[in-house]
Amino acid sequence: MDVKNELNDKFLSQDFGNNDRISENLNSYRLFASGYARIENAIAVLSDLKERKSYIYYGGMAQTLGMDTKSQCRCVDSIWEDEIFRCISPRDMERKHLEELKFIHFIRTKTKQDYSNYYLSSVLTMIDRECHRHLVRHRVFYVGIQPNGSIRLALCLYNLTDDKSDTKSYICESVSGKVLPLEQHNCNDLVSKREKEILRFIDEGMLSKEISESLSISIHTVNRHRQNILLKLCASNSIEACRIAKQLNLI
Amino acid sequence: MDVKNELNDKFLSQDFGNNDRISENLNSYRLFASGYARIENAIAVLSDLKERKSYIYYGGMAQTLGMDTKSQCRCVDSIWEDEIFRCISPRDMERKHLEELKFIHFIRTKTKQDYSNYYLSSVLTMIDRECHRHLVRHRVFYVGIQPNGSIRLALCLYNLTDDKSDTKSYICESVSGKVLPLEQHNCNDLVSKREKEILRFIDEGMLSKEISESLSISIHTVNRHRQNILLKLCASNSIEACRIAKQLNLI
Repeated sequence: MDVKNELNDKFLSQDFGNNDRISENLNSYRLFASGYARIENAIAVLSDLKERKSYIYYGGMAQTLGMDTKSQCRCVDSIWEDEIFRCISPRDMERKHLEELKFIHFIRTKTKQDYSNYYLSSVLTMIDRECHRHLVRHRVFYVGIQPNGSIRLALCLYNLTDDKSDTKSYICESVSGKVLPLEQHNCNDLVSKREKEILRFIDEGMLSKEISESLSISIHTVNRHRQNILLKLCASNSIEACRIAKQLNLI
Repeated sequence: MDVKNELNDKFLSQDFGNNDRISENLNSYRLFASGYARIENAIAVLSDLKERKSYIYYGGMAQTLGMDTKSQCRCVDSIWEDEIFRCISPRDMERKHLEELKFIHFIRTKTKQDYSNYYLSSVLTMIDRECHRHLVRHRVFYVGIQPNGSIRLALCLYNLTDDKSDTKSYICESVSGKVLPLEQHNCNDLVSKREKEILRFIDEGMLSKEISESLSISIHTVNRHRQNILLKLCASNSIEACRIAKQLNLI
């Protein structure tokens, strides 16, 4: 669940400024989310990254998953919908976070006007109370973008599916319908060549002092690089950074 | 476009009574439709079958299709969105109507509480102003069901897609994610054995008088059967009825 913490940092450390244009729109987006639950029997989660709240709307599939949904909507003081996450198989949970990380990196290569024109789609295995497994199509939309480019609102949609043939994750450009397989998204330029070099040394267990000697640079420079690496990979320590870098095929 | 007229009859001849519970909800459904346009860049059409109006919401894909959308929403005095239909290839248009007819027949085998738990999904070819072809995922939801079982509101969603691998039409049960290929839906019991017999005679060009002699029944009985056949197949004349019966593999 380390990637979750990294995503957390990435989301919550954004500068939301004082522009509250989106707060006004929050109610519209809450209605849209409730529409997905009502029309598609989906579970829809609207997360407000500024207020650190999530609004969860339970369509008919929640009962199929054996969720205890006395109310049709629940508000939680977190951007993570733990109740839903508990149903996702641990392996898919790890993958889900990693893919969202890739998606954010992808989105950041676009202009902020285009953020909302892409969504991430993947298929997850969810496990109900009786330990039955269900396939769920999961889509992530960044719907509330602040003028400075901060992502204010994220909409996660869960739909039961029985499509076992196409479980590959992809990013979709919704204006054109074009699909970009997630594995093709190149994260290679996420960190610089020198940072990759240092990541490899860290992965071999070398200390900053040893790295500085190997590269003939000051230990101060090594530590500056390490800080940048953590920032760029949304990692909270070097071990996490190495793991993410490997998962993204950077080293 | 004959099937369209039949669908028209099927939809508009329903008894909507005086219960106006759904009118109150119309605004919610209009908001949901606008949400699809905004979040998924879809074109969303909410048709009010009682008032014979459609509310069309144009997401980003409308521009890709070269539609003239100065406003983001348009209201037309028809349950048919001709502007969108003009973009659909004629062959797919015919198929679309036939599939919707099958879908209605399928829905009618369910309890009215379950109507909204199913949707029809198909892939259509749409042609833009420059004659470029685009694949579009089309979904139909019956969202406003009156207490007497009449379908009051239908939501049609159009999403650009580039999924060329899975273009089969299907009915999805959204609560469970279960998919029922449309060709497997058996329309066989739509008309009775005797009605099929009469349909075959009509198809051979026989007149009511000849049919009555062949079957040793009165011409009055033949005409009663013919009326029932037209009603059941939503056809406005015998030629249409024969065509639909063939398309549904009834004769």
